[in-house]
Amino acid sequence: MEVYIVAVGDELLSGRVLDYNTYWLAKRLSGIGFTVVGACMVPDEKGEIADAVRRALSKADVVITTGGLGPTPGDVTLEAVAEALNRRLVLSKEALGMVESRYNELYDLGHVKKPGAGGERAKMALLPEGGKPVFNEVGVAPGVVVEEEGKVVVALPGVPSEMMYLLEKVIPLLEKPEIVYRSAEDFIDEGDESLIAHALREVMDELPGVSIKTYPSGFGGKVRMKVIASTKAKSWEEAEEKLGRALSLLKEKILKRKVEGSRS
Amino acid sequence: MEVYIVAVGDELLSGRVLDYNTYWLAKRLSGIGFTVVGACMVPDEKGEIADAVRRALSKADVVITTGGLGPTPGDVTLEAVAEALNRRLVLSKEALGMVESRYNELYDLGHVKKPGAGGERAKMALLPEGGKPVFNEVGVAPGVVVEEEGKVVVALPGVPSEMMYLLEKVIPLLEKPEIVYRSAEDFIDEGDESLIAHALREVMDELPGVSIKTYPSGFGGKVRMKVIASTKAKSWEEAEEKLGRALSLLKEKILKRKVEGSRS
Repeated sequence: MEVYIVAVGDELLSGRVLDYNTYWLAKRLSGIGFTVVGACMVPDEKGEIADAVRRALSKADVVITTGGLGPTPGDVTLEAVAEALNRRLVLSKEALGMVESRYNELYDLGHVKKPGAGGERAKMALLPEGGKPVFNEVGVAPGVVVEEEGKVVVALPGVPSEMMYLLEKVIPLLEKPEIVYRSAEDFIDEGDESLIAHALREVMDELPGVSIKTYPSGFGGKVRMKVIASTKAKSWEEAEEKLGRALSLLKEKILKRKVEGSRS
Repeated sequence: MEVYIVAVGDELLSGRVLDYNTYWLAKRLSGIGFTVVGACMVPDEKGEIADAVRRALSKADVVITTGGLGPTPGDVTLEAVAEALNRRLVLSKEALGMVESRYNELYDLGHVKKPGAGGERAKMALLPEGGKPVFNEVGVAPGVVVEEEGKVVVALPGVPSEMMYLLEKVIPLLEKPEIVYRSAEDFIDEGDESLIAHALREVMDELPGVSIKTYPSGFGGKVRMKVIASTKAKSWEEAEEKLGRALSLLKEKILKRKVEGSRS
């Protein structure tokens, strides 16, 4: 199962807000075996969002958008998803009920000044036709799940606490990946990645399908270099086994080169 | 001047590393008037990176990539940029001199085990033909600036400290935006954005070209809502004036509705 993430919001592109949502989605979904194949950040413009969703659908089985579900005129994600999927935007009674129930609750708590789902609030219940709302107990705007020819578009709110909460409700609705993505990290005490580049190449040649990258945080013997290996496999066990083999083979090769280097 | 950011790295899509670079680029460049029109995150795959660079060039005047400039086999950004621009990858003597001088310096400091730019290190001096290297005093891999039909592709390293340092050297090389992008923020003490959605719409209708969005962090009278207004203009003064007008008009309208609401 491949996932593409579309983060919506002018505030991300102006650098006023750091996009933690994409990081969290990537981390959480990779951790349970999904392969995140790409992500993008688009402004609050219907055409731009719709283009991004269409392109994302051509690259992945699951497209997740974050942001743009609220009641203000700048919130146009659901309109854009409807456009991308050639569907009408229709009032969902189920979603309207969710919005109403949350505002009534917030009113009873004294947190908002009016109860009900009237006025601009009803906008949050306009979904792409066929979309299913997901109740948002943290904020108000429901998440939306829309199936499209065996693929799925999931629209989540942009407020991170709401996004994270709704993601957990959406995960069980997604098909479990048959091919799982797995990554593992280790540390190597070589201060300089140029000296282990050759060993990296050899390991990747010997173990096709395993990718290994190094992440230096500086230079010098005291700086440990992070090494991340990743692969896909039919089971967790197979993936773990491949990654374990790759990382120990890498360490072996580095050690061997060191010994040979000190002899010559 | 429009900018598109391409963040390269498997580690970003697997959620092992948070992409701070895109945030920083967006913040820094927006702050000096560039309009960041979009951003994407791609894996360490030549084809994917090349596609992203081509698409970015169709959307913006300046394309900035981060990551994938190092000596390891997973570092393929410059190959991809060359592919996207239909150029050969050629050894730049200038870049090789930069790489050599940095490794000699690091060797003298006892931070690396070998001096010089031999072996895998020379890979960092292979640039798209016509590309200009930018000396990297923080790490080793030079940044690269490639001009293409009045547009420019800038390749920066993925290590944030190196990226930020090189960015400051690259900014003076870019043309200054003639149309400046500017955003401003304010706070509103209404706990519920659904009640001010109407006022937002009215202000945007009265002041075309100004976009205003609200960012609630929860509900309730004690939660201040952030409001961000943004616009483009021919000068900073004009932009400031438009944004100031938009934000005060918004407050006026909200106050007016409140007064009318309390009367009714």
